[in-house]
Amino acid sequence: MNTSVHIAGVGSTKFGFHPDRSLQSLAVEAARAASADSNVPANRIGCLFVGNFVGGIMTGQELLGPIVAADLGFENVVAMKVEAACASSSAAVRIGHDLIRAQAEDAVLVVGVERMTGAPREALTSAMTAAIDQDSEGHAGLTFPGFWGMIMARHMHLYGTTREQVAAVTVKNRQFGTRNPLAQFQKAVSLEEVIASPPIADPIRRFDCCPATDGAAAVVLAGEALARQYGSPSVRVAASVMVNGPVRICDYREITVHDGTLNAARQAYERAGVGPRDIDVAELHDCFSIAEIVDSEDLGFFKKGEGGPNVTPAAGKAGVVINPSGGLLSKGHPTGATGCGQIYEIAMQLRGRHPNQVPGARLGLTHNGGGTAAAVTVHILEATR
Amino acid sequence: MNTSVHIAGVGSTKFGFHPDRSLQSLAVEAARAASADSNVPANRIGCLFVGNFVGGIMTGQELLGPIVAADLGFENVVAMKVEAACASSSAAVRIGHDLIRAQAEDAVLVVGVERMTGAPREALTSAMTAAIDQDSEGHAGLTFPGFWGMIMARHMHLYGTTREQVAAVTVKNRQFGTRNPLAQFQKAVSLEEVIASPPIADPIRRFDCCPATDGAAAVVLAGEALARQYGSPSVRVAASVMVNGPVRICDYREITVHDGTLNAARQAYERAGVGPRDIDVAELHDCFSIAEIVDSEDLGFFKKGEGGPNVTPAAGKAGVVINPSGGLLSKGHPTGATGCGQIYEIAMQLRGRHPNQVPGARLGLTHNGGGTAAAVTVHILEATR
Repeated sequence: MNTSVHIAGVGSTKFGFHPDRSLQSLAVEAARAASADSNVPANRIGCLFVGNFVGGIMTGQELLGPIVAADLGFENVVAMKVEAACASSSAAVRIGHDLIRAQAEDAVLVVGVERMTGAPREALTSAMTAAIDQDSEGHAGLTFPGFWGMIMARHMHLYGTTREQVAAVTVKNRQFGTRNPLAQFQKAVSLEEVIASPPIADPIRRFDCCPATDGAAAVVLAGEALARQYGSPSVRVAASVMVNGPVRICDYREITVHDGTLNAARQAYERAGVGPRDIDVAELHDCFSIAEIVDSEDLGFFKKGEGGPNVTPAAGKAGVVINPSGGLLSKGHPTGATGCGQIYEIAMQLRGRHPNQVPGARLGLTHNGGGTAAAVTVHILEATR
Repeated sequence: MNTSVHIAGVGSTKFGFHPDRSLQSLAVEAARAASADSNVPANRIGCLFVGNFVGGIMTGQELLGPIVAADLGFENVVAMKVEAACASSSAAVRIGHDLIRAQAEDAVLVVGVERMTGAPREALTSAMTAAIDQDSEGHAGLTFPGFWGMIMARHMHLYGTTREQVAAVTVKNRQFGTRNPLAQFQKAVSLEEVIASPPIADPIRRFDCCPATDGAAAVVLAGEALARQYGSPSVRVAASVMVNGPVRICDYREITVHDGTLNAARQAYERAGVGPRDIDVAELHDCFSIAEIVDSEDLGFFKKGEGGPNVTPAAGKAGVVINPSGGLLSKGHPTGATGCGQIYEIAMQLRGRHPNQVPGARLGLTHNGGGTAAAVTVHILEATR
């Protein structure tokens, strides 16, 4: 007998620079905020999942499940870290969702966290390549800016996408970021500034890239009965989907089409009983500006190749507002925290309390990807008010 | 509606030195063996959990879930890494168990893997301290041999445990290891050799310590219907428990008593409806020889302080044979793989196919700990034949 699953509470630190904070301290701040937001008592939470990607490599700290549990005062809980590169905390949400849906747990706390700033750039770049298969393509030395640079060049070649259309993603998301108090970048940039910024991996330039970010975000998931008991049933999880995709570029049939996203989206729409036209607001994995265009196509908001001309801060042709949080480009990308951070943003939209509120938003979507779209999650959330 | 959960298949690489093998290659070998052993078709497996601790720090490889999934030819599965230090893969088994029990999944593949040899000793020691809270006690510089050295000294002081009794654990487990083809050490050692081996962290000596090990072990978990359909219902999971314990030594009320183990054991016996006297065979987390004594007490096989005089290769007073695999001391301790490795050993015992077979074994227990017994799992497995 399944129950519906609800986002009973959300919490977040500011995303940005926290050079003096540890992983556990950031995680605890976000977890406490989510817990308080949910009203669900700690003793009803049976599982704690900490989503984290490069904590071991960058900070030498593992065992974050029991450490964060202890710092929160939890006793006799199931506590562990979950890792799926940049999709770590949304992967954990998927498992938490399934445990609650099948009534194996009443409530689960998921907190995503990352510390990325302060290290030499080479160390961070090297850490990020932990999401590339070292048995096959790792030795080639390709980095993620390089991967997305190839995709951008090919998208422009195949579909006529222009440099200006891609830059418009950054302009839009940086403009949204000016009004999001959690965002790392709260300063707008112009089309000219994006295009004139220093080259990183041609044709990608610096302002096409998300920054390195410290931060944590947390979600309390609860079954319907518990969410109602504690007054927090207002956001229902209509679909929680995770799939694996190609882990090697050589396994792609076409690098501008991400099968992980296509498959996750198809399953998510089917489970929620909705289509892309029904989504009011979406937080997509815009680790690079071109990624938002590719993802907006693979999620079905636009036909393949038509994402470029349709970049707009309004609902536009597809009827969906994309990345009103500022996205990874402006809000920042603390990799392990990003999945929970996106759910935080959509939950706020569905409660009508977002700084860039989409009027009347009732159905929201999050899309979070790890590696070469090798781990992809799609969540569809619905306002129940 | 809950179903019973079965160990439908198990697989393992040899534990020991695999200097030319990657994490993914070891994991795939064990996973394929478990899959073949189970007869469960790949398309019935909805989730793949890879238990791994220091893969990021030691090898720079993360995203093992999707990478191993791809190498196994799995499509559209939920694939992620799970980390709880040395209890990583048994933590993953706990989650897989719960998903199947509540019928959220039909079958789950859990594979634990680690690569630890070949690195400078300092690098490995440093990696292991990722399981110590760097916010509190990490700066003190205590390592795990140091932690267990303190416990051994105090156990001898409080309970009169002798140097010879502790060394007898190594002698027993190394003797068992001579007959386990998967074991890293297959050579017996004498009491005198253990006591005369070089000091590591007084009173712990080299032969009191488990080695650094490469290896992988895997388990296919399935619900009753599926296990019966594919002819693999012979080992039932009677209890799957995970709890968090103290993450700081300063939080211990008494370092010879491990609350994580006490609590996990109490819950496991309760759920299985059995007591410690009913267990025929156990695989305990003997990362150091003294650990087997402490754990055998906290699991209820002996009263606190009475473990030392009761170290024996036979069933002895408690009626349980302990670590007939050779344990971590002889079989080796590829941290992320150990939890699944223990379940492999007990499953073989319950099928009556173990190289150190306990005659008529029907009820087996595994105990796996991470950090300062900060993450503890206890599994009770039952022969259904």
